[in-house]
Amino acid sequence: MKGEDDVNTARKDEEADGSGEKLLGFNSTEEQPSGPRGQDSMWRNEKYETVPLDVKGIDEDNSKGTRDSLYPQAALRKAQQGNERPKDPKLWPYFQDGLRRIDYVLTYHVQKPQSTRKLSAKSCLCFKFRREQSSPPAHEDPELAAQEQRLDYHEDDQRLRREEFEENLREMGLEMEREEGNKIPGVGFLKIHAPWEVLCREAEFMKLKMPTFKKYKVSHGSSIVEKVNMFVQKVTATLQPKVGENRVENEKYLSYPFSREKQHLFDLSDRNSFFDSKTRSSIVYEILKRTKCTRAKYIMAQQYSTRLNFMCTGISSLLGSGVYTEAYPLHDGDIDGINAEANDRKILCEEWASYSIFYKYQPIGLIRKYFGEKVGLYFAWLGVYTQMLIPAAIVGVIVFLYGCVTVEDNIPSMEVCDERNNITMCPICDRVCSYWKLVTACGTARASHLFDNAATVFFAIFMALWATMFMEHWKRRQMRLNYIWDLTSFEDAESQPRAEYEFHVMKKSLKKEKPPKEENVKLTCRDRMPAYMTIIVMMVFLICVTLAIVFGVVLYRVSIMTALHMSSTPSFRTNIRATVKTTAAIINLIIIIIMDEVYGAIARWLTIMEVPKTDKSFEERLIFKTFILKFANAFTPIVYLAFFRGRIIGRPGKYIYVMGSYRMEECAHAGCLMELCIQLCITMLGKQLIQNNLFEIGVPKLKKMLRQRKIDKKHQEELDKTLHRHEKDHFLGPFVGLNPEYMEMIIQFGMVTLFVASFPLAPLFALLNNIIEIRLDAKKFVTELRRPIAVRAKDIGIWYTLLRGLSKVAVIVNAFVISFTSDFIPRLVYQYMYSPDGTLHGFVNHTLSYFNVSHFQPGTEPTESMHLGYKVEVCRYKDYRDPPWSDTPYEFSRQFWAILAARLAFVIVFQNVVMLMSDFVDWLIPDIPKDISIQIHNERNLIVELFMKQEQGKKYRNTIGDPSPQPLRSRPSSQA
Amino acid sequence: MKGEDDVNTARKDEEADGSGEKLLGFNSTEEQPSGPRGQDSMWRNEKYETVPLDVKGIDEDNSKGTRDSLYPQAALRKAQQGNERPKDPKLWPYFQDGLRRIDYVLTYHVQKPQSTRKLSAKSCLCFKFRREQSSPPAHEDPELAAQEQRLDYHEDDQRLRREEFEENLREMGLEMEREEGNKIPGVGFLKIHAPWEVLCREAEFMKLKMPTFKKYKVSHGSSIVEKVNMFVQKVTATLQPKVGENRVENEKYLSYPFSREKQHLFDLSDRNSFFDSKTRSSIVYEILKRTKCTRAKYIMAQQYSTRLNFMCTGISSLLGSGVYTEAYPLHDGDIDGINAEANDRKILCEEWASYSIFYKYQPIGLIRKYFGEKVGLYFAWLGVYTQMLIPAAIVGVIVFLYGCVTVEDNIPSMEVCDERNNITMCPICDRVCSYWKLVTACGTARASHLFDNAATVFFAIFMALWATMFMEHWKRRQMRLNYIWDLTSFEDAESQPRAEYEFHVMKKSLKKEKPPKEENVKLTCRDRMPAYMTIIVMMVFLICVTLAIVFGVVLYRVSIMTALHMSSTPSFRTNIRATVKTTAAIINLIIIIIMDEVYGAIARWLTIMEVPKTDKSFEERLIFKTFILKFANAFTPIVYLAFFRGRIIGRPGKYIYVMGSYRMEECAHAGCLMELCIQLCITMLGKQLIQNNLFEIGVPKLKKMLRQRKIDKKHQEELDKTLHRHEKDHFLGPFVGLNPEYMEMIIQFGMVTLFVASFPLAPLFALLNNIIEIRLDAKKFVTELRRPIAVRAKDIGIWYTLLRGLSKVAVIVNAFVISFTSDFIPRLVYQYMYSPDGTLHGFVNHTLSYFNVSHFQPGTEPTESMHLGYKVEVCRYKDYRDPPWSDTPYEFSRQFWAILAARLAFVIVFQNVVMLMSDFVDWLIPDIPKDISIQIHNERNLIVELFMKQEQGKKYRNTIGDPSPQPLRSRPSSQA
Repeated sequence: MKGEDDVNTARKDEEADGSGEKLLGFNSTEEQPSGPRGQDSMWRNEKYETVPLDVKGIDEDNSKGTRDSLYPQAALRKAQQGNERPKDPKLWPYFQDGLRRIDYVLTYHVQKPQSTRKLSAKSCLCFKFRREQSSPPAHEDPELAAQEQRLDYHEDDQRLRREEFEENLREMGLEMEREEGNKIPGVGFLKIHAPWEVLCREAEFMKLKMPTFKKYKVSHGSSIVEKVNMFVQKVTATLQPKVGENRVENEKYLSYPFSREKQHLFDLSDRNSFFDSKTRSSIVYEILKRTKCTRAKYIMAQQYSTRLNFMCTGISSLLGSGVYTEAYPLHDGDIDGINAEANDRKILCEEWASYSIFYKYQPIGLIRKYFGEKVGLYFAWLGVYTQMLIPAAIVGVIVFLYGCVTVEDNIPSMEVCDERNNITMCPICDRVCSYWKLVTACGTARASHLFDNAATVFFAIFMALWATMFMEHWKRRQMRLNYIWDLTSFEDAESQPRAEYEFHVMKKSLKKEKPPKEENVKLTCRDRMPAYMTIIVMMVFLICVTLAIVFGVVLYRVSIMTALHMSSTPSFRTNIRATVKTTAAIINLIIIIIMDEVYGAIARWLTIMEVPKTDKSFEERLIFKTFILKFANAFTPIVYLAFFRGRIIGRPGKYIYVMGSYRMEECAHAGCLMELCIQLCITMLGKQLIQNNLFEIGVPKLKKMLRQRKIDKKHQEELDKTLHRHEKDHFLGPFVGLNPEYMEMIIQFGMVTLFVASFPLAPLFALLNNIIEIRLDAKKFVTELRRPIAVRAKDIGIWYTLLRGLSKVAVIVNAFVISFTSDFIPRLVYQYMYSPDGTLHGFVNHTLSYFNVSHFQPGTEPTESMHLGYKVEVCRYKDYRDPPWSDTPYEFSRQFWAILAARLAFVIVFQNVVMLMSDFVDWLIPDIPKDISIQIHNERNLIVELFMKQEQGKKYRNTIGDPSPQPLRSRPSSQA
Repeated sequence: MKGEDDVNTARKDEEADGSGEKLLGFNSTEEQPSGPRGQDSMWRNEKYETVPLDVKGIDEDNSKGTRDSLYPQAALRKAQQGNERPKDPKLWPYFQDGLRRIDYVLTYHVQKPQSTRKLSAKSCLCFKFRREQSSPPAHEDPELAAQEQRLDYHEDDQRLRREEFEENLREMGLEMEREEGNKIPGVGFLKIHAPWEVLCREAEFMKLKMPTFKKYKVSHGSSIVEKVNMFVQKVTATLQPKVGENRVENEKYLSYPFSREKQHLFDLSDRNSFFDSKTRSSIVYEILKRTKCTRAKYIMAQQYSTRLNFMCTGISSLLGSGVYTEAYPLHDGDIDGINAEANDRKILCEEWASYSIFYKYQPIGLIRKYFGEKVGLYFAWLGVYTQMLIPAAIVGVIVFLYGCVTVEDNIPSMEVCDERNNITMCPICDRVCSYWKLVTACGTARASHLFDNAATVFFAIFMALWATMFMEHWKRRQMRLNYIWDLTSFEDAESQPRAEYEFHVMKKSLKKEKPPKEENVKLTCRDRMPAYMTIIVMMVFLICVTLAIVFGVVLYRVSIMTALHMSSTPSFRTNIRATVKTTAAIINLIIIIIMDEVYGAIARWLTIMEVPKTDKSFEERLIFKTFILKFANAFTPIVYLAFFRGRIIGRPGKYIYVMGSYRMEECAHAGCLMELCIQLCITMLGKQLIQNNLFEIGVPKLKKMLRQRKIDKKHQEELDKTLHRHEKDHFLGPFVGLNPEYMEMIIQFGMVTLFVASFPLAPLFALLNNIIEIRLDAKKFVTELRRPIAVRAKDIGIWYTLLRGLSKVAVIVNAFVISFTSDFIPRLVYQYMYSPDGTLHGFVNHTLSYFNVSHFQPGTEPTESMHLGYKVEVCRYKDYRDPPWSDTPYEFSRQFWAILAARLAFVIVFQNVVMLMSDFVDWLIPDIPKDISIQIHNERNLIVELFMKQEQGKKYRNTIGDPSPQPLRSRPSSQA
């Protein structure tokens, strides 16, 4: 098509010029009265002719071999003109002629390779027939048709629809090549190529911004900033991947939405590389989405009898109804092996998808170039997140170390461990437990200090601001990427309705007796009400299940604890708490992981039931549901530990019992923070290890093995060498979207920010995980999966909203953790209100209330009351209540209310101060980096300037009548 | 220019068509080898020739009269071709030829009409000279020039710059007509007309979306929605203004960014009306902004000696340096009088800017058409705000009425008024005041109930949600307007640097010894540091001033109170509180209004000192500063009343004193809510009445009078009749932006939302004010001010951020008002924790602590201790403290801490619940209305479809060789 395209464009160029050369262009059109289109349709006709040839049996089974045997001569001729040599289709994704690149592949089912010939003959027949009369296809010869119909109506029907669809694609200008059951039996391939003209047209419709001739200097803010940048660049030079495009460029091509009328702006010298492979495939996909298929049917299993004719739009409904089985663009080339020439995929594999370079930056530009903006943004986001985790991890470690260092100076734990205090505590369970000395809790008290000290409060504030900074930093990074990727003026379009939605709309319109106007039928709230009700009921039920699981684990703990207490082995008793805590946390972890998968499946099922209209809304609704369920699943045990455990136990003599006789579990003396910490630690580590290893590495490997098992094993190695690109890619896993990746990260982000006050090491664990995660995902994308369709996207969409929501919730959760779960506020209140000398000396005594053992409910007093060697009359318990000898025994004391007020005041102050600071940081850091906004402004001015110059150049030429090309147009002086 | 333009476009159309008719177009160009540009430049030459004619003295004083005397013949010839008749330039804003519309007017200073001739001769001379040699202008004859320079160098210089600028404008294709000192002495007018070609070019650069031929049906969501819409429409039919464009249209023209290459898409049959007057003027303004003036100087007073040559950009720096005095587009026509034909301005005046139609909707479409999007958005926003105030006002009134109705059933106030309780209260001031009976506070207790009841809490929640709903509703409305006004893909460009900024940059670059690269010089943080420091110091100082004022008013109240107490007149005493409260509130009001103006001026001064780069950032910084100052000014007294008054008084026997001997003021028995309410009421009503009447009506009238006084009064009436449009507009006030209007509304919004818990009638007052405000502003815009330059805007910018911030702050402020200022929480706590029977009986007694009068500090006990007729041993005061006979006398009691905890808990719950609800509402209501998003999607599809059809049409014509234009053929059954 090269030569024709040239002529074509040349003509257009002249039109745009409006100069005197026009006559030439006109003449050239005159000489070929049918125009380039005429020749084009000639080609097409040739291709149709091949079908009968095929039928005549010249070359069976490999029908396209013949079909395109006519082609190479013409192609070669053109190629010689263009100094191009056909490439080996085995190495490169080209048509058989080795010239036309495969931009997209559709696959479909071929049942019996033997019957192909006959059937294709038939389909060709009816196709011809339809073109003449445009009557329903299968009725040209009633008798024969009826027979055929009964035989394999379904398959036949699908073929008809395929052919109609393909014809429509040809109308749109696409070129196709078919390959049926060549090496992989039962699978037909439709290879699609978009010629230059189509690419140009669609690029214009899609308003693709392409680089123009004009270069301009990019200024990086003020000179100081520039110097700092230079310095940073030098320092991090070794961290840059070697892909030859990472240096901060000082020049950028001015880009402008592609327009055929403004072709002179663009460097079209190499048409093959002007649109890169991902752009080509997304252009083809755009056409596939748009192309209508009037006679398509949506056939559900066991619904053969209802012949539902409706207008379906695009490839998605054809995929939905099984007319095509798969649709994917092709990878650029092989990663390894003898065939591997240098290609983007190989570079990515070497410079990105490798664990050995985990310390390097990612080649975001190349990722975007290869996978498109959406995937690029995911990895950019992951990179920013991981980078931002570094300072958080460092501060977290420092906070933890601070706890370790100061553990010796901590007065409350010293008091607990001081034998001289000799405090007798009330028993922790009924009857079998006895009174105990506080000094035995010395170990936990010291351990608690590691996570419950003054630095924790600072760290919680730090992390709240960190989260805001992260969001801001990401917004700026995103804006910068938008600028670099020329997406600043890109607007996200609402996509086509989904196939399921259309099917439901159609069903609805069929139900109504009178046929309504086609366009007005849609699913209203009333139609969706049953689905909505189911969703609400299911969601509530599932959240109840989550709560029930947590309660179950609590019961497990309580009962095991009691059982262990009853046992007589003393070594058991000493390790009781640690054992129970750890096993319970592991049980929790396992349940979380299992339920995660279950909830994911249920969320998908519920969303399908809802029948959202577009892919975008489907995705959003699915994400939303999955997020709620997975989030509840992961965080309910933690929330229980942080806020409820040990708070609803009653008091000695008036304990609260569950399930008959189990007393609710208490916290250790120094608070529940320690246990919360263990739980978080196990959940984070375990979840990451298991999910990463098992689900992300193991399962895909297994799936790939299963897919390849379908083929004979002995032939496999031979096949591997001879397989074409599209066949190789067929064996790869389908790309299922980025949502699982994002979801995993969001839950992790929740762990890092929500309870960071109780577990300062969380950022460190997250950081270690993410360093692996990046390379793991990279490997998956480059080697394991089919190439995704490049989707343009300006931002990470709903995920940003979720992140933002999480970081808001984090503020209040951390406020509560600090004020209620930790002993920070009681210590502060004691120090400033009650302490005689302004220190924490006496704090432990202050937190313990008195209980007269004669007030035990009958039957709950300890059986071995003399366990400690003396008769206990008054025991102590951790609470702020009036002593037995006051006017109001066991009522909450004034201290209780004062501390409660202080706790609540702290929550208010913390929440509002941190929110204010976050908003201030948000306001302080502009969303659009200064240099980028200047750049964008400059670009606009440059464009106007460029056009004004051209105007004047043109004017000048017109006035003087000088036909010589003006200097500005260093464009192909094509007409020459 | 009409005829030429026609030829020109015709040629282009053909080019775009690419059909066989091309030859014709080619020939027509052939016949005029120099092309339209050639003729164009001929005109230009003619115009230059007029200057010498002028010099020769054919017609002095009215130079343009001659200049254009050459013109009409040609113009008339063209007009006759175009079947147009020249219009009377007195009625319509046209050039003297009556054909070319005045799109923009620049005015400048003309000092002596007598010397005009000589000077213009000179300037013409140097102008010519410059064109030949392009050397510095004033040096062609050193001696003469030096002389002239000394004479009136300044004026001369300005003229030179004007001429250079005007020459540059001509280069850009604009046409100009000059008029000096015709009727208004000392003022020269430069009338600017943009010919069709320029309009087209600029429209393309500005990416103006214009309606195409293609119409499409607008669907209004589902059929139910549509029916509801129809119904609402019928009901509100009488509320619609009669401007003939308000019905919900079912069809909309598909619009597409104007492009000269796609002219066939647009309906260009009437070129005069294709771009409306506001678009024309904004196009001219765009050119004026962009046009450079290389030799321009920024001359500061007393800096004549420094000749600062620098490259200035655009009209703004010329206006800044006084080269031009004013720049404005023209109104469409007169409002009244015999000359008034129907025009948009007149319609607006009748159907919008009139108090008699206050109940009607505003004709937003017409406002936008006449004033541009930015002004349109302001009025749309004001309309939405006023509309949303209606439900708020209704609910507010209901809440108030509920208070009125339940005042009789209110147990606490009944108890206060019950004589039998016989409670003796401690004196409210030292020595001169005596003990008093609680029953005397009966009146205030009953009045307090009006504003402090259970409904208030509900109302506070309601208003928090109302604020969210309002923001959401506005976002949707804005989106809808964006869609209707075709702004969906409009991007706001960063504007040019301001003149002051450029001047400072230039000064900076001069200071440096070595001349740096021009582009890199800019003001860094270091340059701005002094300004920043000043700003911070000033802002802190001003806020301190505000606080000092509030403290002054407090002192006034305390001292007057004491003085009044000392007076012996009993009638004085009884009315003491009311008198003091009211006078203090009025003093506050007056101070607020005065300081408002002062702060406005200071904020402007500070912003100028800061030298922001662009107009946009200037505006934002100014708004930000003004907002902080005005907000602090308006709300400090209210915040003091709500949260501090009566809380820092100490207790009997240990009062807190200020300024020596003044005791801090207490609240009335029933809390400060009542006084807060009075303060709010007076501030709102007073501020609105005074600011509206005095500043918005009075001052503009005064200014207009002053402007017109410059002209002889006797001639005025005669002049009025003969004045041209541009002269009439010259007398109108300049448009100073929308910021004062927005600021006023934002402060009002603050009043309505922030303390709504204490004053449920606030929305009603705001509503009444706004109904007047809309028409007042409308009148001002239509009759009092020059027409503003139409500015495109997608949103209301920083104001939205401020509104959003306010509605967030409102949640927390209301939470605090309810829990701390009102008695809601103590009542609740008493009822559920302390009340013996679960009712409020005994509540008043519970809130009063005991004081043993023997514990008074010596010298502070009341002198007339027997005032009540019996010896008082124990008096009561409002606080929760332990009684004198307890272990810890006068310490805060357990009740105090419990109630404090309850109050704080309420704040946390209220804040988080309301914020959650707001976020939920925010999330629930999509920002983009459903039907609009569908519409936008449809539009995109339609555009692609339209182009595809044209493609195929073109292809078909090319193939068949059929030259007849195809009427948007519904797809070719081509190649058939």
